[in-house]
Amino acid sequence: MSSTPDTCESAAGSSASHGDVVTDGQALAKRYADVRALSDSIVAPLQPEDCVLQSMPDASPIRWHLAHTTWFFETFVLADRCDAPVADESFRYLFNSYYNTVGDQFPRHQRGLLSRPTVREVMGYRRDVDDAVVTLLRNADVVDESLARVIELGLNHEQQHQELMLTDIKHAFAQNPLYPAHVDAECGPCDAPELQWISSDGGVVNMGCTGDRFCFDNELPQHRVFLEPFQIANRLVTNAEYQQFIEDGGYQDPRHWLSAGWATVQQQGWTNPIYWIRQGEGFDEFTLGGCHPIDPDAPVAHLSYFEADAFARWSRARLPTEAEWETVAREPSPDDPTSGECIDALRPVHPTHGTPSASGVSGLYGTLWQWTSSSYGPYPGYTPPEGALGEYNGKFMCNQYVLRGSSCATSPGHARRTYRNFFGPDARWQFTGIRLARSV
Amino acid sequence: MSSTPDTCESAAGSSASHGDVVTDGQALAKRYADVRALSDSIVAPLQPEDCVLQSMPDASPIRWHLAHTTWFFETFVLADRCDAPVADESFRYLFNSYYNTVGDQFPRHQRGLLSRPTVREVMGYRRDVDDAVVTLLRNADVVDESLARVIELGLNHEQQHQELMLTDIKHAFAQNPLYPAHVDAECGPCDAPELQWISSDGGVVNMGCTGDRFCFDNELPQHRVFLEPFQIANRLVTNAEYQQFIEDGGYQDPRHWLSAGWATVQQQGWTNPIYWIRQGEGFDEFTLGGCHPIDPDAPVAHLSYFEADAFARWSRARLPTEAEWETVAREPSPDDPTSGECIDALRPVHPTHGTPSASGVSGLYGTLWQWTSSSYGPYPGYTPPEGALGEYNGKFMCNQYVLRGSSCATSPGHARRTYRNFFGPDARWQFTGIRLARSV
Amino acid sequence: MSSTPDTCESAAGSSASHGDVVTDGQALAKRYADVRALSDSIVAPLQPEDCVLQSMPDASPIRWHLAHTTWFFETFVLADRCDAPVADESFRYLFNSYYNTVGDQFPRHQRGLLSRPTVREVMGYRRDVDDAVVTLLRNADVVDESLARVIELGLNHEQQHQELMLTDIKHAFAQNPLYPAHVDAECGPCDAPELQWISSDGGVVNMGCTGDRFCFDNELPQHRVFLEPFQIANRLVTNAEYQQFIEDGGYQDPRHWLSAGWATVQQQGWTNPIYWIRQGEGFDEFTLGGCHPIDPDAPVAHLSYFEADAFARWSRARLPTEAEWETVAREPSPDDPTSGECIDALRPVHPTHGTPSASGVSGLYGTLWQWTSSSYGPYPGYTPPEGALGEYNGKFMCNQYVLRGSSCATSPGHARRTYRNFFGPDARWQFTGIRLARSV
Amino acid sequence: MSSTPDTCESAAGSSASHGDVVTDGQALAKRYADVRALSDSIVAPLQPEDCVLQSMPDASPIRWHLAHTTWFFETFVLADRCDAPVADESFRYLFNSYYNTVGDQFPRHQRGLLSRPTVREVMGYRRDVDDAVVTLLRNADVVDESLARVIELGLNHEQQHQELMLTDIKHAFAQNPLYPAHVDAECGPCDAPELQWISSDGGVVNMGCTGDRFCFDNELPQHRVFLEPFQIANRLVTNAEYQQFIEDGGYQDPRHWLSAGWATVQQQGWTNPIYWIRQGEGFDEFTLGGCHPIDPDAPVAHLSYFEADAFARWSRARLPTEAEWETVAREPSPDDPTSGECIDALRPVHPTHGTPSASGVSGLYGTLWQWTSSSYGPYPGYTPPEGALGEYNGKFMCNQYVLRGSSCATSPGHARRTYRNFFGPDARWQFTGIRLARSV
Repeated sequence: MSSTPDTCESAAGSSASHGDVVTDGQALAKRYADVRALSDSIVAPLQPEDCVLQSMPDASPIRWHLAHTTWFFETFVLADRCDAPVADESFRYLFNSYYNTVGDQFPRHQRGLLSRPTVREVMGYRRDVDDAVVTLLRNADVVDESLARVIELGLNHEQQHQELMLTDIKHAFAQNPLYPAHVDAECGPCDAPELQWISSDGGVVNMGCTGDRFCFDNELPQHRVFLEPFQIANRLVTNAEYQQFIEDGGYQDPRHWLSAGWATVQQQGWTNPIYWIRQGEGFDEFTLGGCHPIDPDAPVAHLSYFEADAFARWSRARLPTEAEWETVAREPSPDDPTSGECIDALRPVHPTHGTPSASGVSGLYGTLWQWTSSSYGPYPGYTPPEGALGEYNGKFMCNQYVLRGSSCATSPGHARRTYRNFFGPDARWQFTGIRLARSV
Repeated sequence: MSSTPDTCESAAGSSASHGDVVTDGQALAKRYADVRALSDSIVAPLQPEDCVLQSMPDASPIRWHLAHTTWFFETFVLADRCDAPVADESFRYLFNSYYNTVGDQFPRHQRGLLSRPTVREVMGYRRDVDDAVVTLLRNADVVDESLARVIELGLNHEQQHQELMLTDIKHAFAQNPLYPAHVDAECGPCDAPELQWISSDGGVVNMGCTGDRFCFDNELPQHRVFLEPFQIANRLVTNAEYQQFIEDGGYQDPRHWLSAGWATVQQQGWTNPIYWIRQGEGFDEFTLGGCHPIDPDAPVAHLSYFEADAFARWSRARLPTEAEWETVAREPSPDDPTSGECIDALRPVHPTHGTPSASGVSGLYGTLWQWTSSSYGPYPGYTPPEGALGEYNGKFMCNQYVLRGSSCATSPGHARRTYRNFFGPDARWQFTGIRLARSV
Repeated sequence: MSSTPDTCESAAGSSASHGDVVTDGQALAKRYADVRALSDSIVAPLQPEDCVLQSMPDASPIRWHLAHTTWFFETFVLADRCDAPVADESFRYLFNSYYNTVGDQFPRHQRGLLSRPTVREVMGYRRDVDDAVVTLLRNADVVDESLARVIELGLNHEQQHQELMLTDIKHAFAQNPLYPAHVDAECGPCDAPELQWISSDGGVVNMGCTGDRFCFDNELPQHRVFLEPFQIANRLVTNAEYQQFIEDGGYQDPRHWLSAGWATVQQQGWTNPIYWIRQGEGFDEFTLGGCHPIDPDAPVAHLSYFEADAFARWSRARLPTEAEWETVAREPSPDDPTSGECIDALRPVHPTHGTPSASGVSGLYGTLWQWTSSSYGPYPGYTPPEGALGEYNGKFMCNQYVLRGSSCATSPGHARRTYRNFFGPDARWQFTGIRLARSV
Repeated sequence: MSSTPDTCESAAGSSASHGDVVTDGQALAKRYADVRALSDSIVAPLQPEDCVLQSMPDASPIRWHLAHTTWFFETFVLADRCDAPVADESFRYLFNSYYNTVGDQFPRHQRGLLSRPTVREVMGYRRDVDDAVVTLLRNADVVDESLARVIELGLNHEQQHQELMLTDIKHAFAQNPLYPAHVDAECGPCDAPELQWISSDGGVVNMGCTGDRFCFDNELPQHRVFLEPFQIANRLVTNAEYQQFIEDGGYQDPRHWLSAGWATVQQQGWTNPIYWIRQGEGFDEFTLGGCHPIDPDAPVAHLSYFEADAFARWSRARLPTEAEWETVAREPSPDDPTSGECIDALRPVHPTHGTPSASGVSGLYGTLWQWTSSSYGPYPGYTPPEGALGEYNGKFMCNQYVLRGSSCATSPGHARRTYRNFFGPDARWQFTGIRLARSV
């Protein structure tokens, strides 16, 4: 494996990212190195054996995450701009996720059947690509805008996989009766603000990204929607509140559930959140720091859309739409990633409620992703980018529900108000929680 | 099985229907008899053996449809109002579809494992219930409003199953290499209007039912939405246009498809619409009148959402939202079921384009249900009714897409502008087609 | 559908049957008519709807049995000997069971998706073929031996399907919560002889058919085997004995079960024989005559090989090998189908223990098929016939276990001492029971 | 993890092994160390990541093999004889394979979901147990016979898993498009003797183990069987011969196949042996030494029973019974593991034909396991041992076929003439081949 980054050219290319971008070569190179280094720190506590596990088709081995994010830069940054390929030809096949335009893919559900290249070899691949990219950036005073855009997209892509590495290894470790811990972590108890309903008059509001700084294509274009008046909860639902739902027979009563949710409850035998473990009268919770008794005041985490929706119905409330959420989040929050007081480190063990904004809304960011009742679809006028990067977001707009905010496992600087995360309604392994709303 | 309808009382009950209702006993009894009779006419050409078939879990045997719609009246009309049960106790279990509040249900996917009660016995059950209901209605000069509402709901429910009987028997017959015909039908060729784009300025529009006449709960409440400007096609996509998509390799090119759609295409081996049968260079189509060469100008039928969406993408257009469709349909159409010139008979063999409205839009009703890009969800402020009838619509609001208009298999008088039909994105056996839209 | 049997020729053909055959045309025509008529009498109590059911992939609809046995005669008797085809060309595809040499087959597990040809049409097909065959036979004073052999094989084939019709409709009716009865039947209680062990010295014994009268190819050739000394039970295991196994926790204790059997018990949730229905402390049993309390002294019926083997292990005994069974059965039995005192009618509702032979062994025939520990394989020197009929038996010699004797649902005259019936170890829907053995 | 082997007692225990055993403490300790060391040498070339893979439910991760064989000694040797447990309590659950008598088992098909204990930790567990066992043995001049028997059984068990480690890692590596090699190996071409048929008169012969030296319970008791005269091939079928079968359309012609085999061929899409990779006109073969062109004269390897049986039928021959094989193998062979000239090292890359015996039969041992037509069942008079070790063999006697001889991956000293290996008829990942036979 040899790279010749000094012969790379800054060819123009399409991009799925939008808004002003950093084109200063040194600054971009530093940002690149910082984001990539966070992946290394996530992997540091793991053993090689851990990095092979694929505990379900929706999850991927750590090995694969590390290689795939690197493949992204090799494919979309280096391939057209460098004379020599950086890596083995087979990597194009092994580490392509879902880009049909780029070529065939090794079957997703079989990623856990591979042990080679080993973790050590994958880390070598990362270093080779990083050297090539950093050299490419540093060689330019001003980086070509199309290159800068695809670098920025690649870094956001890396951050998405950083959160997935944490949720995937958590799910894998939870299969093991030894319940291994990823990190040592001790946290004090969490305080929950009193529940309050924040009112909004609705009307015609703007929604989506203006495009003046980086965002994904699915946040575009900004457009108008009409909102009827509504109320939204000032904080996320707590473990204690959710436990009441369980004790009230919530998992046994079909009246609370969507029809597809009830079928899932019965087929999968759900009786509590995925990482809760019954201990006598109460529950322990498996976390990335091992098993601990649940903290009643902490936000309830790792719920599917089906569970969030059932809880909301049982509460005689509902989930907010994504337009409602975005409207409420318009007011600056101390945790707002755009406010300058952003979250500066991963705290993936225990989510807290965060600091309330002036209007009293807490936990918008850095706690848990919040399910909305909105099916994930295109905004009016949405057009995916040309070429392979057009596959980034648009083709998943079916049978998924939008989550808003960000979680304690989201990488620093990755969240924003218009961000649209999405998962299927039965997905439980993400850091997901509930913020209630109601019509008035 | 004995009924004592003369002892029935008109107890008040909740209802999922809304709007003014007919409370004149004689008129309601006549309407009841008319709607029920259409079911008989659908079944008339069938053999007893045909009525047992369940060709897939989503379909039901004709036996079951006939009994279930009768169970609906027995359960929601007669049970609380009559002294003696009309039918065998086991029918409550056998013919309950999905009302958990009412009791357990015989497993849906096993409905095709039953031969008893036979068709003859089921028809006897229908007559017993009909006698009881008609007597109940005729005994009252003015029917209690709550009773009138549940009768009206039951009749609309019967009409929904009338269309399902046609689509289910079509699917069952298509499994048989003998390709049996349900009816003898001869049709001349169909003319397609030239494709034109109708423009709309959008803005804040009203959507949903006002509740001044019967509608389902999912059409309520009327509310405001904001539409960006858009265009919509004056007619449905034709067989010839869809064949171009096939010949252009549409079913082999993942770029046109949603990710979940592409997975379905590959797993199910789709290469053309479900009822098209390759004959040399062209195609035959299996219809309820047997196999015939496809008519190039007729609307293309029996497409899934995935296929409709892929075709739209290939056409550089998109599917309309349900709000867009409803806005365009505001202008009266000659086929409008509310216009007085409504469809007076089932014509389930060959859909046509219908007669254009003043503004040139054709085929809104009585042709094919039209996929919208809108995921099926609750309108702002939606509340399901209390009790068992609350299960009618709300619990299906997940992973389904809304269809608008009506089809050549929809019962006379059943369609309306605010009607929300819905199916999963892979459903192909309904009379479904494509109307294109685009943003401007 | 027209047949021209008078132009048929008696062409020579290969055959899977062996031994002397009846070649007198009138006698063979009478035998043909008698055997075929028994199928009609089995179907007589059924409704058309019943004849469509396929309750599991291993079972077939009655419609199909009636047509397939007819197809057998059309294909192997008439096709080469008559000028004109008797039936629709599509029947070759629809009613071929597994003869790859003859052509493709409609998928077995989808036989229950067909309603056409209807039962009435299938009965017409039977009459047309019967007319042609009977005419063919009556036109000859002496029937060509190859024709006589294939007729004899076809009649034995028909008899096999007669038993399958009874077991398949029993399984189908058992899915229906109404538990329909096939026949009205009232039986007195059954007496069980006291359990005794019959000893045998073993040594070199002959096994298999000599070929001097009709037998299937899988009973050939006669050959020698060596038996170590053994003992065999004088009668079948009773319901009361089997209930003790249940009450002793037999279905919950893996030590009694083969590994594959234990996996099946857990996956399928077995806790008792397939047609036993828990009623308070005891059990009812579903029979072709409806549900009745179990008779403690009657032979326990409808057990899989796994259950028979587990019961034997729990009893500190074992199942006999097929060589042991055949050796014990050498002594004439009053129920022996070859003794002249054979069973003259189907008695498929309640098996009894039958009449003991001189040496005290009862229930060899006409009660329940008896599982042996012998895997179904070829005898030394076995050669399947040439041509399509070579597919009759040989290709199933894998992962099946041999059953010996005959059952209360076996057609009169069909059983014999060397007969090898076979089913997979998880099959429960046949009339199968347990005769114990042990080594000494 | 601490062990206190010096406090262990030599308690008596039941055992599934038979025959005279070594009871000299020093000698047994040395044999123990030698056999255990071979496992280490098999694992030496592997990376930690490799040891996690489970490529199908029938295979297990190398981690698991290493731990499970150790668990066997801990459970059946140390648990009753030592004061303190050697390992973590959870290991009893994690590394129990199928001993229901000992306790619950972690689900077999999920073994590949675990990464902890890591390979390093498992190797530590091995060392702790080895220290305890060796101390236990060395502390005794003469080892209690029951202890000696269970040690001998545990070592044979270890050897069985040594072969499985090789076949499981081969299967896992074959999933990887990089086709990793386990070892570097270069072999010259293989010579095939000319095909000859060895005749045997049959008659009453003895079969099974006399019990005068170690054997498994399933080889007992010795008993008599009668053999009709037969012939057997002097060598195994070659790659060239098998390629002829392929080129003759063998995988496309149902007439050659058992019914269950043909279903498997079609469902799995088999067109050649599992590790053959089409290269233009010919084939490469994936081996533990990487991919190489097939050697036409070498024995064809990695066939299922279905393939072996189909090839035999196409050859107008058949597979031998296990009694026939054992009879032919009675004459001493140069490769005979009991002859003193036994195989002294694993040669798992390329099987050869071995050295012929005086009567000209080659390849009985050390080449490929040879499928017999015999279903795996109990010998007359077979009794499984009491207690947990009774689960060793008997409960698998269903739907499996017996293989005889041994393979190039069988551990030195493990083979013998009466050895009964067994796998299901669709198993392809073992070192299995074909020796033909025929009746005369």
